[in-house]
Amino acid sequence: MKSMGNFSKEFFILATAVAWEAGKPLVIEEIEVHPPQAMEIRVKIMYASLCHSDINYWEAKTQLPIFPRIYGHESGGIVESVGEGVTHLAPGDHVLPIFTGECGECPDCKSKDSMICRLLKVVPERTVMRSDGKSRFFINGQPIPYYHNCTFSEYTVVDARCAAKINPLAPLDKVQVLSCGVTTGLGAALNVAKPFKGSTVAIFGLGTIGLAAAEGSRMAGASRIIGVDINPAKFEQAKNFGVTEFVNPKDHDRPVQEVLIEMTGDGVDRSIECSGNEKAMVAAFECLRSGWGVAVLVGIPPKDSLLKIKPEQFIGDAKTLKGTTFGNYKPLTDIPVLVEKYLNKELDLDKFITHRVPFSEINKAFDYLLKGESLRCAIEIGV
Amino acid sequence: MKSMGNFSKEFFILATAVAWEAGKPLVIEEIEVHPPQAMEIRVKIMYASLCHSDINYWEAKTQLPIFPRIYGHESGGIVESVGEGVTHLAPGDHVLPIFTGECGECPDCKSKDSMICRLLKVVPERTVMRSDGKSRFFINGQPIPYYHNCTFSEYTVVDARCAAKINPLAPLDKVQVLSCGVTTGLGAALNVAKPFKGSTVAIFGLGTIGLAAAEGSRMAGASRIIGVDINPAKFEQAKNFGVTEFVNPKDHDRPVQEVLIEMTGDGVDRSIECSGNEKAMVAAFECLRSGWGVAVLVGIPPKDSLLKIKPEQFIGDAKTLKGTTFGNYKPLTDIPVLVEKYLNKELDLDKFITHRVPFSEINKAFDYLLKGESLRCAIEIGV
Repeated sequence: MKSMGNFSKEFFILATAVAWEAGKPLVIEEIEVHPPQAMEIRVKIMYASLCHSDINYWEAKTQLPIFPRIYGHESGGIVESVGEGVTHLAPGDHVLPIFTGECGECPDCKSKDSMICRLLKVVPERTVMRSDGKSRFFINGQPIPYYHNCTFSEYTVVDARCAAKINPLAPLDKVQVLSCGVTTGLGAALNVAKPFKGSTVAIFGLGTIGLAAAEGSRMAGASRIIGVDINPAKFEQAKNFGVTEFVNPKDHDRPVQEVLIEMTGDGVDRSIECSGNEKAMVAAFECLRSGWGVAVLVGIPPKDSLLKIKPEQFIGDAKTLKGTTFGNYKPLTDIPVLVEKYLNKELDLDKFITHRVPFSEINKAFDYLLKGESLRCAIEIGV
Repeated sequence: MKSMGNFSKEFFILATAVAWEAGKPLVIEEIEVHPPQAMEIRVKIMYASLCHSDINYWEAKTQLPIFPRIYGHESGGIVESVGEGVTHLAPGDHVLPIFTGECGECPDCKSKDSMICRLLKVVPERTVMRSDGKSRFFINGQPIPYYHNCTFSEYTVVDARCAAKINPLAPLDKVQVLSCGVTTGLGAALNVAKPFKGSTVAIFGLGTIGLAAAEGSRMAGASRIIGVDINPAKFEQAKNFGVTEFVNPKDHDRPVQEVLIEMTGDGVDRSIECSGNEKAMVAAFECLRSGWGVAVLVGIPPKDSLLKIKPEQFIGDAKTLKGTTFGNYKPLTDIPVLVEKYLNKELDLDKFITHRVPFSEINKAFDYLLKGESLRCAIEIGV
């Protein structure tokens, strides 16, 4: 969709997909996008894609309902203008806006052991820009609450330290999937679970994040990768991502952790939970092998979730339970490196992009994902 | 106490402290100790000490009641005879019997990442010897159920692969504390929590295990070690083990995790839970700093305990929760090394031994520990 906007020095009037009500189709609206303030950039979004956590906020069944809202946090674009104090980015730079950031100055950014920037860590309930506590999006004079970079928009404004500058030769319709799901799953395996050569890994939830975790596990040398999902149709596709066996919890009248322990003898060496389901989190921990088993939680749980776990499995069995945000990758430092890996054909992203729609048909992307038909659907926004 | 026994080729008649009823004083009885069978050794116990988990089984409030029983699993002794197939130990060897073992053959023993031997891992509810499913202790013709090496006895029979052969120059009344508590706490810090130089560590429960964890944290270079205990009298003693600050949860009308977060700004880098209390386990996790916080569970929980933890702290904050048995030390491989460290004055064990009683007064050791007056009380058994 081409811009319909009148450009002014102060703000753009542009097409944006606005969610007005929980679970109702987004509406393409003309809105004002205000200029970037201190340490912010305004970005022309070329491609975006839909991630399951957008759906969770849009459905507002398990998360706080905030409407109207502009969803989207996976995207690739080009810097249009920069605010005061921004020196590391300039108009024309290709960037992937990321839902979390890297200030480079805080103890976490300076440590190799954390990617949870003190200043710019994700706060899902945040509805305004950090610099001045305001939104940059207005419709009929009313501000639209901010959400995770608001990338379902022809232009958006993001903190400059939440945008990874990437090689301009990288096709944005492909590498944009690195701005959330694929990176999260890949890193959950490579940086956090760290499966060893010949190990057995269970992956709970075979969406994009789970399949990226399977891909990472294969890259790390795992020899058995057991996919767990309640949709049996997912197994065929999962084989392309390294999944070697499949378990559907619905096929068994006992807990799936027992099935996995029986399949493996002692339990799995690593498990990666990507569904966000409480029961699956407990199963991912309980199916671990004692001695060295590590479970990694990735999927976003409903708010007010509570995990109920037997402590004896920690103490008697020496198991480990870890969590991760964005696969423990530092967004500004590590994402450009993953983009180079894609360009060097060390990392295949193309197979994650199963659908493509023009911006005007963005609601189709929701349908595909809700029906479990798509992995990532590239939404053509600025093209 | 000297042996009162008649010796025979088949069995010894010897003094043993028998618990006949939950929470009632132990009774010194003459019992038969049968000879070691295949892969077993019979050990003359010189010194033993009382660990809090003995008390848990004896009180039988939170653990399965099994009576009569011979408690004790911290001890040092001398091999008296060996059963068929035992080649790595001979009569006269000094040993520390350990509640868990090391067969040397299973995948866990062969891996550097596990000390939970497939064959010989601790099974607290086990009441018989593994080799033939029988007890080695009889009173009036009736077998006494086995428990964790039954070291409150002039002689005991243990699996030969559950006995660490140590330097005979090491004083058994001192190094015997390495057979459970001190090693567990020390390893929980050095092998599992791994505090970094300058880090802040919270220790929950300032008994022997907690103080050994503090000692390990200090050895690793932690600069703030915050002790948490409901007995304020413990702080003075704790200073000798590296504890720099003290928090009594009873002094605050809000959860202790909030107090710890306020004290540290961001939360603690590491926490080590040694009390076995469910609430303390949750606090140990919740007081962690995001990004790199690691909590280690060590204390034995009541049976049927259930931890209730918010999964968002794993996912949004990238925290880690681990468990450990015996501080992740391999009993036969690592304990002799710790004994050498004691002999070389790299490791101070003496300060853990606060009391000493003859075998006939073993019930005093229970009193001291129940009142929180003692750390370890050396019970003189074979001397």
